[in-house]
Amino acid sequence: MALNTLLEALTQTLGPGAVLTGSEVRSRSAGWISREPIEAAAILRPRDTAEVSRILQFCHAAGQPVVAHGGLTGLVDGSHAHANEIALSLELMNRIEDLDESGLTMTVQAGAVLQAIQQKAESAGLLFPLDLGARGSAMIGGLISTNAGGNRVIRYGMTRNLVLGLEAVLADGTVVSSLYPVIKNNSGYDLKQLFIGSEGTLGIVTRAILRLVPQPRSQNTAFLAVNEFAHLPLLLRELSAGLGGTLSAFEVMWNEFYRLVTTPPARQSPVLPQTFPYYVIADALGSDQKPEQERFEAVLMAAVDKGLAADCVVALSASERAAIWAMRDDVDQFHQFRPWFGFDVSMPIRHMETYVTEVRAQLNAEFPGNVCFVFGHMGDGNLHLNVHVGGGDPEARHAVEEILYSRLQSRQGAVSAEHGIGLEKRAYLPLCRTPEEMNLMRTLKRAMDPKGILNPGKVLA
Amino acid sequence: MALNTLLEALTQTLGPGAVLTGSEVRSRSAGWISREPIEAAAILRPRDTAEVSRILQFCHAAGQPVVAHGGLTGLVDGSHAHANEIALSLELMNRIEDLDESGLTMTVQAGAVLQAIQQKAESAGLLFPLDLGARGSAMIGGLISTNAGGNRVIRYGMTRNLVLGLEAVLADGTVVSSLYPVIKNNSGYDLKQLFIGSEGTLGIVTRAILRLVPQPRSQNTAFLAVNEFAHLPLLLRELSAGLGGTLSAFEVMWNEFYRLVTTPPARQSPVLPQTFPYYVIADALGSDQKPEQERFEAVLMAAVDKGLAADCVVALSASERAAIWAMRDDVDQFHQFRPWFGFDVSMPIRHMETYVTEVRAQLNAEFPGNVCFVFGHMGDGNLHLNVHVGGGDPEARHAVEEILYSRLQSRQGAVSAEHGIGLEKRAYLPLCRTPEEMNLMRTLKRAMDPKGILNPGKVLA
Repeated sequence: MALNTLLEALTQTLGPGAVLTGSEVRSRSAGWISREPIEAAAILRPRDTAEVSRILQFCHAAGQPVVAHGGLTGLVDGSHAHANEIALSLELMNRIEDLDESGLTMTVQAGAVLQAIQQKAESAGLLFPLDLGARGSAMIGGLISTNAGGNRVIRYGMTRNLVLGLEAVLADGTVVSSLYPVIKNNSGYDLKQLFIGSEGTLGIVTRAILRLVPQPRSQNTAFLAVNEFAHLPLLLRELSAGLGGTLSAFEVMWNEFYRLVTTPPARQSPVLPQTFPYYVIADALGSDQKPEQERFEAVLMAAVDKGLAADCVVALSASERAAIWAMRDDVDQFHQFRPWFGFDVSMPIRHMETYVTEVRAQLNAEFPGNVCFVFGHMGDGNLHLNVHVGGGDPEARHAVEEILYSRLQSRQGAVSAEHGIGLEKRAYLPLCRTPEEMNLMRTLKRAMDPKGILNPGKVLA
Repeated sequence: MALNTLLEALTQTLGPGAVLTGSEVRSRSAGWISREPIEAAAILRPRDTAEVSRILQFCHAAGQPVVAHGGLTGLVDGSHAHANEIALSLELMNRIEDLDESGLTMTVQAGAVLQAIQQKAESAGLLFPLDLGARGSAMIGGLISTNAGGNRVIRYGMTRNLVLGLEAVLADGTVVSSLYPVIKNNSGYDLKQLFIGSEGTLGIVTRAILRLVPQPRSQNTAFLAVNEFAHLPLLLRELSAGLGGTLSAFEVMWNEFYRLVTTPPARQSPVLPQTFPYYVIADALGSDQKPEQERFEAVLMAAVDKGLAADCVVALSASERAAIWAMRDDVDQFHQFRPWFGFDVSMPIRHMETYVTEVRAQLNAEFPGNVCFVFGHMGDGNLHLNVHVGGGDPEARHAVEEILYSRLQSRQGAVSAEHGIGLEKRAYLPLCRTPEEMNLMRTLKRAMDPKGILNPGKVLA
């Protein structure tokens, strides 16, 4: 069936408001990174799971590629839709369907925006722990499809850990509804795992049952300076053990990053002198402010006494806490160094120091005058590196990618910790996955989407 | 290839010590429940992953069914091997290969026994959080293949949440090695999820990288009596919020269970009077005994003041704590009522009261004089019911199963919370999974094990 005929049939089935074409498509931006117009032949906006199913039945019959669209806040070109592809946007499926206060669950449609979910939980004295910068536009379906991470993984896990039940539509329109609301369900294969983190290539997420926790009643935040890399894992362990289950973030900034976000035009001023090689944000979420704050300060003081931290500031107010986090979150400062290449790698902490040293040395050798900012969720084994080498041509990008990605395999590392693969990292995936793993991924893709219509070319070629 | 010829070929490849036949097989028990001799044609005992791969290459070529054997502590007939099947025991692959104290990981072979893993972690001041009664014989490969739960799920999650990396061998002998040591890895499909909880039907787990946490430095345990079911979820939420991240167990016992384990011949005496309808064990693992104990007692007292608990005892010594847990763990008392049928269901807490009431009513109608003990990990939505109706014939078992399982679907419940499906619950799996889910499970099985040689008949017919 020709694409036009298919779109006519879909318009007839879904009603005209559900099918955008032409300038209605082109006037929309393809995402935070590219800011180019969307190229897709059409954007379909189903209102419920049955409509998603009907769309996929039509497209499957026609062999028509479909790219699921959420908030388009991804960073790896995972939702790029070509001119011959149809975008299926979950934006109208944004209902929060149920909040179970005794079971601590929330049932949502895939288009619900993270911030709306967070606020709904908060209104019941509960917390949906997932949090990241794009909270105002990222939709839960996309967060699930990319297994989003964020700032509290050390305490609450990745998105995968926060999804109890899931509903997804397969390539042929079959609705696979695994909407189970409990932590424990060992009744057959855990099918939801197939759709979490597979970037819309195995099915389109339509609904989910999320896990909530009671809202923390206390928060303690510190900013530390550290003199030696070897102190960082020891400090992490000290805090982790000393703060029991409450440590929720252990974010590390290398010196260059810290200077970037505490020097004008950045709005923050230095909380500690800019002379230390490493800085750490430690955050704890608990239940009882006063004793926990005493404990927090005692544990930090002990760490300083042991020489694991060279200096330390504890936030004594919400505004001090905000000032500390504002440094970490001020990623806009990278725009001083456009074009920049962003990376999101993971590896065991014990390999990070040599990794960064080697990467810097080779960058300096190949790109004198380059700038390389390193920061990340060290507690999760996750480093972000943002590199500026001058031009942004594909050859430069490729050379920088080679420098960063070629050093991962020997360190049991991964080319993506939390952003995913999309189109951007597809060529490098075999650097951190074995041929047998690549084959098994292809086996799954073939078994679940034999015509290859779901988000074609993403993750796997 | 005839089975005998195959076994000769395997003996030649692996060496004679690796292949047990005849009385060496028959002298071994098939497990904790059946206690019958193992029926398998042979037990193969590979020493490393390469040998597992070789065995499966041979068996795959011959279309020979293979049943993976760990500690044989499962409860659902998940490792039963028929006379025409080969058992592949991981017992010789019990090495702990690596302990990374900075990365908080342990690399183990699949035959490592849980208790050995726990002790190894402890020796480094760390904790492997998975814990259950069979710790002395359960092997990690089996615990992973069944996604074991246990007593600390509310705090640390199921086994799935404790596995960072995994190596498994596919039906055709392909080794899929995903031995990644970090929490965060969004580089392509998370293949390990396929093998966790699929009961050896999609691959045989050979090695794993486990997640450790710092050892808790404090523990607080309480035993509570509760007057109304409706108080239980409120109490759970009160403790969960009040104790921050430290609540590690919320175990509930219905009255009959409590009386069973606190009346001779049971060794424990009642900690609180036997007159309350519900009892709760609450356990918290933290980092600082004194302030946390004060907090624990204050939170419990507040719960009593609010009327959520009718009475409460806090353990003031290790022996008092042990006495409280000894009640919960005294499952041997079920043997007073042989034969008994054990169940392991899950559902949202809000449905539990009517569920138990309806089950009891129908049991009483159909089996006057029956005994039904209810207890479980309520914090995880998991109830265990142990039922004795007199005889143990298949018809009686089937009738009891119908009574318990037919009431789950309308409650978003599952026929297995943590034990798995095996052979025992296979017929009931469609009661809690949709036809589309069953089909997708079969699609996976066909794609990954087209000849159906891995643990045939378990989970799926």
